[in-house]
Amino acid sequence: MAFAEQSTGTSEDHLLYLEIQHFYGRQMRFLDSGAVEDWAGTFTEDGVFAANAHPEPQRGRAAIEAAARKAAEQLAAEGVQRRHWLGMLQVDPGPDGTVLARTYALITSTPLGGPAEIRLSCTCDDVLVREDGRLLVRHRQVYRDDLPKS
Amino acid sequence: MAFAEQSTGTSEDHLLYLEIQHFYGRQMRFLDSGAVEDWAGTFTEDGVFAANAHPEPQRGRAAIEAAARKAAEQLAAEGVQRRHWLGMLQVDPGPDGTVLARTYALITSTPLGGPAEIRLSCTCDDVLVREDGRLLVRHRQVYRDDLPKS
Amino acid sequence: MAFAEQSTGTSEDHLLYLEIQHFYGRQMRFLDSGAVEDWAGTFTEDGVFAANAHPEPQRGRAAIEAAARKAAEQLAAEGVQRRHWLGMLQVDPGPDGTVLARTYALITSTPLGGPAEIRLSCTCDDVLVREDGRLLVRHRQVYRDDLPKS
Repeated sequence: MAFAEQSTGTSEDHLLYLEIQHFYGRQMRFLDSGAVEDWAGTFTEDGVFAANAHPEPQRGRAAIEAAARKAAEQLAAEGVQRRHWLGMLQVDPGPDGTVLARTYALITSTPLGGPAEIRLSCTCDDVLVREDGRLLVRHRQVYRDDLPKS
Repeated sequence: MAFAEQSTGTSEDHLLYLEIQHFYGRQMRFLDSGAVEDWAGTFTEDGVFAANAHPEPQRGRAAIEAAARKAAEQLAAEGVQRRHWLGMLQVDPGPDGTVLARTYALITSTPLGGPAEIRLSCTCDDVLVREDGRLLVRHRQVYRDDLPKS
Repeated sequence: MAFAEQSTGTSEDHLLYLEIQHFYGRQMRFLDSGAVEDWAGTFTEDGVFAANAHPEPQRGRAAIEAAARKAAEQLAAEGVQRRHWLGMLQVDPGPDGTVLARTYALITSTPLGGPAEIRLSCTCDDVLVREDGRLLVRHRQVYRDDLPKS
């Protein structure tokens, strides 16, 4: 098909875009289902999770797992199902072999027996690396739209 | 590009992921536009639509079409546009040649002249098969987040 | 993988689908971040932006940029972050070498210090063309779900 053949991006670029979508599908399901060890395993061993809602970033898999476990236990106790949607992905390979993956993030919240609600709108800027063939997050920066950026 | 070449998944896996995204784009547009015969045609002849909100699954294309027609007629009478968003897709090929496709589902509802609202947050687990080259849903299990799983 | 090899669509079709997703990721980020010149540059020089909420379409890049600038300045003054999510993409190549790309559009709005909200649910029908290898919008038709179609 002539239309596609003229594309400026390469097939490899496009397949990377796709692979990152799939990565996020799995990663967010880990978080929202309380599989906190699997969730932490999607970051590098020294991965960082920073957010303008947090005074300090979570540094390293152990800290990322601990924070997720605390949140998961609280949500379970409250009977609330939270879901993280990432979308509007933009992918830019960096000069150092890493990849900058940027998404919009919408977080929904549904209490058992109650109405689904939008909880937060954010952006999520990830620096992704590949280790042993697998994508991992080395650095994540989340900005909540309702809070100042810094 | 070295980064992509190191991917663990094959190009075929990635293209299947993409094809399923496109399948859902078409399928949900059928449902939300009231094209209920086309909607039913995206299931196998003996396809099953189960949901934790329904006492009994819909079994077979005729039942799936009838239920969609009833819902479409009611929404048209009320002047409500409902939209089904599927996202955060995860694809896992099964041992028997079928494919397990899991998504988050967000259902929005907009009355003519009124505000758009989130109606429901769900998950959707599909068993997909291929017949004559086309993807079809053999079994769909929807879980509303506000209801007990079983 | 046999499952994928039997696909009716070609790899080129699938890659175009992917390229359009990426195009929208970049395009909507331009709009939502107030990069209005870049936003206008994603339309052809004579591009048209029509909507059932507008009495007249915006015709040409200059008009599209001017309208976006006005909206961006107002949102900045109000301290509101708006986000445009496109999803449920359906792609149909036309007989004349153009491509019809249809999406659902969800627009969220978050005031500084306030709750995120769904602002609008719409559909977006684009006629895309390729110029110098880049995708551009030649014609966009947006329909808000809360307004009559015509």
